[in-house]
Amino acid sequence: MEQVNVKLTLAYEGTDFSGYQRQAQGERTVQGELEKAIVSLTEEEPKLIAAGRTDAGVHAKGQVVNFMTASRIPLPRWAAALNSRLPSDLIVEQAQAVPAAFHARYDAKAKTYQYLVSRRRWPDVFLRRFCCHYPYQLAVEKMQAGAAFLVGEHDFKGFAAAGSAVATTVRRLYRVDISEQDEELSFILAGNGFLYKMVRNIVGTLLLIGEEKMAPEMITEILATGQREKAGPTAPPQGLTLMMVEY
Amino acid sequence: MEQVNVKLTLAYEGTDFSGYQRQAQGERTVQGELEKAIVSLTEEEPKLIAAGRTDAGVHAKGQVVNFMTASRIPLPRWAAALNSRLPSDLIVEQAQAVPAAFHARYDAKAKTYQYLVSRRRWPDVFLRRFCCHYPYQLAVEKMQAGAAFLVGEHDFKGFAAAGSAVATTVRRLYRVDISEQDEELSFILAGNGFLYKMVRNIVGTLLLIGEEKMAPEMITEILATGQREKAGPTAPPQGLTLMMVEY
Repeated sequence: MEQVNVKLTLAYEGTDFSGYQRQAQGERTVQGELEKAIVSLTEEEPKLIAAGRTDAGVHAKGQVVNFMTASRIPLPRWAAALNSRLPSDLIVEQAQAVPAAFHARYDAKAKTYQYLVSRRRWPDVFLRRFCCHYPYQLAVEKMQAGAAFLVGEHDFKGFAAAGSAVATTVRRLYRVDISEQDEELSFILAGNGFLYKMVRNIVGTLLLIGEEKMAPEMITEILATGQREKAGPTAPPQGLTLMMVEY
Repeated sequence: MEQVNVKLTLAYEGTDFSGYQRQAQGERTVQGELEKAIVSLTEEEPKLIAAGRTDAGVHAKGQVVNFMTASRIPLPRWAAALNSRLPSDLIVEQAQAVPAAFHARYDAKAKTYQYLVSRRRWPDVFLRRFCCHYPYQLAVEKMQAGAAFLVGEHDFKGFAAAGSAVATTVRRLYRVDISEQDEELSFILAGNGFLYKMVRNIVGTLLLIGEEKMAPEMITEILATGQREKAGPTAPPQGLTLMMVEY
């Protein structure tokens, strides 16, 4: 039977998911909900490949997954058909047919993440699920100076959570931009790949620099030594959103 | 005992509230949650006066309430003390001492509401609690032409939900602005007062005009005749936010 390789672009609010990846024990996951919808639509058990796993509480505006299907449902109908079967915190933004060789993880050239921080005195009731509340004075220009050291190809071992088995901890960051709007601080990070908890560890470190508890130049030392303990704490998940995956 | 008149500025996400006003039957309301927090702090039963009631599902960024208290707690500590007792969908933004005669409802000079519409093809997982999803082509300039007829002093009976006992249905609107950003449409309405469901009935009517199912000039006829049935449907509550009350 002829198979089609389907690429889906997903948006989800991570709040009520135990992350992207399906787990044992019946935890609610993005993959689990999406698989249920696909099974209901096609009566096939799909083998989903995602661009990357997102942790519990982390959001996505542009997660990408692909899977092979023998279903004869025309591609223009997939998004509506799946969305009518998905919960309101998970949406298929787009469904496309892609070449059989396309692989959402291996073929990803760049990923872009946003991390949002609110410096309001009191938590914002509207943004509380989508930002880290951090009501402190922050020296943004020092954070930007620290961020500049991160751009380029480096060994990011010092910003990776322990225990993830990867062949190399060298990655290339294309940009680490920090911008202010009202009382929100938005971090945009784009790179060819990210280690486990790397964005949240970078943000946690830049926040220490913003509080002037660490010098911007410490970034170069963390990169040079690869010592996780020199870096800042892991910023909480709800501020993080996977914005886009480029192929 | 000397009493202080305390004015609180509140923000809340309306999603999980059965509106502002305390109800019988133990429904979860903004007033109910706020009263509980004040009782816990002061051991007094406060008599809360709100600038206006918001319906179930309607949000606020700048609701105002006042109440008299004999508590000796210094005003600068009220916001933190109440916020530590309030649920995460209700925040005291500011607490001030005001003259004894200040009355949050009678003294309100102007109120500003925002209504948010998303025209994205699929519901936005991040905005779904804060907007009305309306994925249709809208002729924005026609809506703006219709909105212009609403500005000024008029009898808004045709835009009021039936059954509310008010002395007069004449109100003055200072502005009805419609602006587009990306796929969102934001309505800003400011006036000296609003009838029951008036903002949502106006928005529902302007959306019909945007769909070209009604001519902008129909607004003048609805105002002239006061016939509710000539106006559009009531837009859903989750798009509406009470932004500001001015005194």
